[in-house]
Amino acid sequence: MEKQIVIVGAGLVGSLWAVYMSKRGYSVTVYERRSDIRKAEIVAGKSINLALSDRGWNALEKVGIADEIRSELAIPMTGRIMHGTDGQLTYQPYGKEGQAIYSVSRGGMNSKMMSLAERSGNVKIVYNHACKGVDFEKSEATFLNTDTGKEIHVTADAIFACDGAFSAVRYESMQKQSRFSYEQRFIEDGYKELLLPANEDGSYKLDKNALHIWPRGRFMLIALPNEDGSFTCTLFMPFSDGKYSFDNLKSDEQVVEFFQEVFPDFYALMPDLVKDWNEHPLSALAIIRCFPWSYNKTVLMGDAAHATVPFYGQGMNSGFEDCYAMNELIEEHGDDWPTVFDAFQSERKPNGDAIQDLSIHNYYVMRDFVGDADFLLQKKIEARLSEKYPEKWMPLYSQVTFSSIPYKTAWDTGMKQEAIMKEIMKQPNIREIWETEELERKILAQLE
Amino acid sequence: MEKQIVIVGAGLVGSLWAVYMSKRGYSVTVYERRSDIRKAEIVAGKSINLALSDRGWNALEKVGIADEIRSELAIPMTGRIMHGTDGQLTYQPYGKEGQAIYSVSRGGMNSKMMSLAERSGNVKIVYNHACKGVDFEKSEATFLNTDTGKEIHVTADAIFACDGAFSAVRYESMQKQSRFSYEQRFIEDGYKELLLPANEDGSYKLDKNALHIWPRGRFMLIALPNEDGSFTCTLFMPFSDGKYSFDNLKSDEQVVEFFQEVFPDFYALMPDLVKDWNEHPLSALAIIRCFPWSYNKTVLMGDAAHATVPFYGQGMNSGFEDCYAMNELIEEHGDDWPTVFDAFQSERKPNGDAIQDLSIHNYYVMRDFVGDADFLLQKKIEARLSEKYPEKWMPLYSQVTFSSIPYKTAWDTGMKQEAIMKEIMKQPNIREIWETEELERKILAQLE
Repeated sequence: MEKQIVIVGAGLVGSLWAVYMSKRGYSVTVYERRSDIRKAEIVAGKSINLALSDRGWNALEKVGIADEIRSELAIPMTGRIMHGTDGQLTYQPYGKEGQAIYSVSRGGMNSKMMSLAERSGNVKIVYNHACKGVDFEKSEATFLNTDTGKEIHVTADAIFACDGAFSAVRYESMQKQSRFSYEQRFIEDGYKELLLPANEDGSYKLDKNALHIWPRGRFMLIALPNEDGSFTCTLFMPFSDGKYSFDNLKSDEQVVEFFQEVFPDFYALMPDLVKDWNEHPLSALAIIRCFPWSYNKTVLMGDAAHATVPFYGQGMNSGFEDCYAMNELIEEHGDDWPTVFDAFQSERKPNGDAIQDLSIHNYYVMRDFVGDADFLLQKKIEARLSEKYPEKWMPLYSQVTFSSIPYKTAWDTGMKQEAIMKEIMKQPNIREIWETEELERKILAQLE
Repeated sequence: MEKQIVIVGAGLVGSLWAVYMSKRGYSVTVYERRSDIRKAEIVAGKSINLALSDRGWNALEKVGIADEIRSELAIPMTGRIMHGTDGQLTYQPYGKEGQAIYSVSRGGMNSKMMSLAERSGNVKIVYNHACKGVDFEKSEATFLNTDTGKEIHVTADAIFACDGAFSAVRYESMQKQSRFSYEQRFIEDGYKELLLPANEDGSYKLDKNALHIWPRGRFMLIALPNEDGSFTCTLFMPFSDGKYSFDNLKSDEQVVEFFQEVFPDFYALMPDLVKDWNEHPLSALAIIRCFPWSYNKTVLMGDAAHATVPFYGQGMNSGFEDCYAMNELIEEHGDDWPTVFDAFQSERKPNGDAIQDLSIHNYYVMRDFVGDADFLLQKKIEARLSEKYPEKWMPLYSQVTFSSIPYKTAWDTGMKQEAIMKEIMKQPNIREIWETEELERKILAQLE
């Protein structure tokens, strides 16, 4: 008989992992708390558009589904376009010629992933089943059928909890284990989405192949393209501190004034800002850390293990990379699950911590620096360096986005590079000498 | 009609707070998950003896119950006695002449506090009622009667969650609120209790008026006196790292060898070490941080808000000080509960964080340094300084233990003093000059 595998959660990671396990020959049942999103209207306003990059693509390639996703769902963004208060635009490429990150909608992506999982043969997705906990010793999960109100108990060879940032498996069962370390840390900022619609002829109101940013110091607006010509826009801002905070944008007038003042070009493009503003909820953002990630034959993957804030565009990518890494470990250890899971958490926990640190770091970069001339010059110097000495210097953003270098290594290298560049940028004549070989030698010498 | 107050948990803080609220004229119902410990045998091995110090006494004085506790339950400990591997003893007073901390048993103390609460008139304690959550908007708590299996709903003017480190109110309800920050961090060490019985004539086997410590670097044993001539002893040690860890003490032989080697004087006193060892559980230790502490008219107090590791002996004292502080704020604001609770968490959260930092700090001090000659000399210099210039220098331990200086202030001042003393102790001739006025001037100059 085929071995029975249970996956909790049919989100992005759960669906992809179902494809992987099905390909490995397991019989997979995925239990999902919600109903089938492919049959329901997609809930608006609660999901940032996602940026798919190399780690995500690698994981999709591995099970042969990258091309289908690429052709149907993904819009390449080759760089950032910064929008100044004066309406001036500045372009900064993300990587080298030909490199891009890809805008995908969470809903579209999730629907597609579920269909791919089902198509892979050995996968059954059971909807409206909320996990009530796992008995780790017995490897038995309990689910409440929210249609009937009845509970079922399911035993499995292994249980993969891909049930997201507020994982029920983690909350109901792991958090009750002694010595389970856990942290949920909300950042001081919230976010609200807005939809910038297409022009009447269906064309895009902004450059389609870029991620747009309106950096304003303590807050920022971003926009990612959708297939239908619209942009999903997100305002990140403090809940309550300072003049510019959600608490200070209570009335319609305040909202209009705010956008007119700080995002004038965006305001001019938005047909019905106030209506859109009032229809979208205000949401919070958290980093969630825990350890261990596994007990016996149950393991956390993706956001359930290492949910992060969205500022590096790596939430989905790191979850997909979890699938890739877990698959490699099964290759190595077979289905000795406690051994596989122990190896998984040893390898992935430092990377989970690192992508969280990176995400917070990039928040400050996006919010405070991407509009800054010095910052842009620094990035140019690094790009030049990386072009000429690719084996010696890869910009941090490229390490995270366009490589499979472990996040932890990227973080460590990136912080070292940052310290070097901080000193370099202090030179008063940096604008004159930035393209000199002497400067390059000076930088590279400090790498040793 | 009297205002109805609900307290969740009849532990030390819940019972004391019941006394306070009863004295303020409220009608108080305390719901306790367990049965009445006064009628049951006290569960052994799960509670470190507690050290009652000034903050705790102040809170007891305020409602007039300090004297009764002092005369019935408390054994003064005027200092630490360090036991070397060679059996040599070193004494270090905790404070000045007449200052002491007091050993009390958790069970004895809790029983007494419950009786005092009931005696105060307006307090009813309901046992075998487990909290299932609180509706903050309605100020309604749900309890499961564990005898009947029935749930009851109780509405109150205010709900005080004094239900300990693993607070049900916090877990079931607060953790489900958006933007509730939460951390439970287990330290790498566990603990196991042992009971060193009295001599046959009822006398103590060790000096009764001291806290005994066997500091051994990465682990330590401590002993606190009980009223009946016995000592409650606790071994703190890593779960699994290094030669000396609980994982490496699996067999009876290993346990005996370990005690013979590293605690020879203690081993010689223990009549049946192995039996005692095997009867006591191995327990974990955590710091738990969260914020906010209150929603509407529900608030966390004591361990539910700021559970800490026991190394400063301030868990109970900080919880009692919460009662004192809350009472002062009710004096100031009346029973405008959201205002009172907001003021409470603003005042007490930094102090809760600080006592946790202090507790971890003192863990290293007790474990690594109290047996060290330099450390003891440093403490002597500080004691001398404090004796001569009491308004300029109060040792950190005294600030925490023998004063009501806010923990946060104590932590900040203490770290500053520590930095100064670290430099002072580096002087090669410190042993010759430690009693000179020149040295004193040098230290005091750095305070500016």
